[in-house]
Amino acid sequence: MSGLASGDESPWLPPYELDSIRSKVPMVYVEAIPIRLSPTGALEDVGMLLRASHNGELQRAFVSGRVLYQETVREALVRHLDKDLGPVAMPRLPAVLTPFTVAEYFPTPGYGFHDPRQHAVALVYAIPVDGDPAPSDDALDFSWIPVEDCKNPLWELDMVPGHAALLAHLLTISGSNL
Amino acid sequence: MSGLASGDESPWLPPYELDSIRSKVPMVYVEAIPIRLSPTGALEDVGMLLRASHNGELQRAFVSGRVLYQETVREALVRHLDKDLGPVAMPRLPAVLTPFTVAEYFPTPGYGFHDPRQHAVALVYAIPVDGDPAPSDDALDFSWIPVEDCKNPLWELDMVPGHAALLAHLLTISGSNL
Amino acid sequence: MSGLASGDESPWLPPYELDSIRSKVPMVYVEAIPIRLSPTGALEDVGMLLRASHNGELQRAFVSGRVLYQETVREALVRHLDKDLGPVAMPRLPAVLTPFTVAEYFPTPGYGFHDPRQHAVALVYAIPVDGDPAPSDDALDFSWIPVEDCKNPLWELDMVPGHAALLAHLLTISGSNL
Amino acid sequence: MSGLASGDESPWLPPYELDSIRSKVPMVYVEAIPIRLSPTGALEDVGMLLRASHNGELQRAFVSGRVLYQETVREALVRHLDKDLGPVAMPRLPAVLTPFTVAEYFPTPGYGFHDPRQHAVALVYAIPVDGDPAPSDDALDFSWIPVEDCKNPLWELDMVPGHAALLAHLLTISGSNL
Repeated sequence: MSGLASGDESPWLPPYELDSIRSKVPMVYVEAIPIRLSPTGALEDVGMLLRASHNGELQRAFVSGRVLYQETVREALVRHLDKDLGPVAMPRLPAVLTPFTVAEYFPTPGYGFHDPRQHAVALVYAIPVDGDPAPSDDALDFSWIPVEDCKNPLWELDMVPGHAALLAHLLTISGSNL
Repeated sequence: MSGLASGDESPWLPPYELDSIRSKVPMVYVEAIPIRLSPTGALEDVGMLLRASHNGELQRAFVSGRVLYQETVREALVRHLDKDLGPVAMPRLPAVLTPFTVAEYFPTPGYGFHDPRQHAVALVYAIPVDGDPAPSDDALDFSWIPVEDCKNPLWELDMVPGHAALLAHLLTISGSNL
Repeated sequence: MSGLASGDESPWLPPYELDSIRSKVPMVYVEAIPIRLSPTGALEDVGMLLRASHNGELQRAFVSGRVLYQETVREALVRHLDKDLGPVAMPRLPAVLTPFTVAEYFPTPGYGFHDPRQHAVALVYAIPVDGDPAPSDDALDFSWIPVEDCKNPLWELDMVPGHAALLAHLLTISGSNL
Repeated sequence: MSGLASGDESPWLPPYELDSIRSKVPMVYVEAIPIRLSPTGALEDVGMLLRASHNGELQRAFVSGRVLYQETVREALVRHLDKDLGPVAMPRLPAVLTPFTVAEYFPTPGYGFHDPRQHAVALVYAIPVDGDPAPSDDALDFSWIPVEDCKNPLWELDMVPGHAALLAHLLTISGSNL
């Protein structure tokens, strides 16, 4: 925790307090699309987690989580990659932390992406992963999806709202859907 | 307010409540550097506000403010530009809202940029301004600084922590300090 | 011509010589997608030129042309915008000339985008246009296409190879196809 | 060579012909700054080649070279990294080939960066390197320079024109000079 001086309180909040705050201000999020590249950098596979959603449905999702009080964006990325992909995933963080896009999630249907829990503003990154991701925490599975299969618009049906659009964005800027 | 359905509460919070939240989660901010360009797009002038800081000192600053609950990043940018530069500034917002950098402000000295009030994560933009900015709200003055003068490192002494670095960043990526 | 000292030869080349060079090295190109934005920066219209292709078919295209010897990228952008859109188009060039993408055109079918004339590497920009473009030079027509209509994949049939992909790229990064 | 169909001529040109072309059109270049990152992605070291310049002086430089006819930008990056850093350097190419900046070199002093040989437009990348670079080809030495030492403006004296500015640009966008 970069900025956490001794004497400061924990950045973790009890659930009732976090729920209250979530109804009052937007949350800062980081999101990471795990990727595998060829030796020359071509996008080969995209990593997806399988999670149980709030209403019990299974959904595909990328790494995603909030930035804690006094935590840097880089620390939050490292922490969520470690938490979601396990200790031997070996993610490769970038030197430059300008996100490739900013994703906005709103609790009210009909605006931006939908997240029933909160209004969140997410900095989104594509992160090469060298090791072996293992689903941890609340994820049920982790799969590498070949980039050819990622172009199938049916993925959208199975994905957390917004994440199919982030995937399409990545395919576009990497030239993978030409 | 894009996502504010009828029946939702106001996104404005009483000061004591905002102060409490500011000690528990990072705030989402937008920051805008007002710029004037030549007909061929060369950076000519940078706009700076003059504000009284919390301890009464005068400080130069760019447009800056938080994103409200249920407000989009674009709406927040428009609102803060309008509030800080007045109704006839005619800012030109970009089609693509990927920021040129992300600035992190921490209340604890020694980490990132310093903001005694809060931990903030700011999306930073350079915004061409066509009209006549008039200092409004809590600003005392607005000045256009020729880009040649912006290179003087003495600006740093007068600027809100972090904003001199944002200015240096803009001069670098626009090729203005070559 | 920034770098053209007195005594240097003209950057213009006779056609036979340019044709010969085009078969030996890649050409440096700039490409500009003319756009119109709402007062808050949302993408509203995309400008397209109508040209007769080499085999006489009509094709939609964006502004495109080569960078001359001793000409800066910025000068080339200004020159081609002026040549293709006329003197009262009032394009708004950006302060930062990092392109949103790099497009590669090859004379050999099956690799990247196809351009039978040459191998070209193009720096691609989206340029807001405030005035009234008038087709000039070798263009037959100029039209503003509402962004809603741009999503129709049928455009691809009418467009210069590669330009439909550039349009899709712009719609993606501006969030216009969400 | 992606686009090189059988029957096409070699993309290599005899020196007299390349010299002639270099006086008539800008050359397409790729440039790569080799970098080493901490496990969390912080910039730790920058790699520099030592070369003998045309007039016999020793100069520091990054990886740099032209894109051949019918060669993709990605292929050119791979080829020049391999040629300059040797076969066990293990460079990590990015999925997205949008450069972090475009550098322009002119043969006429006083415009952009200076290159007495040619007018070149270079796509510039920062490339993480995992292995052991060995100076090859025309380089005399390769060194990793700690990022702290890179901030010393004296580097500029020893570097190829323009490369000190590219280094300063990278330090700025990675937050390394805060």
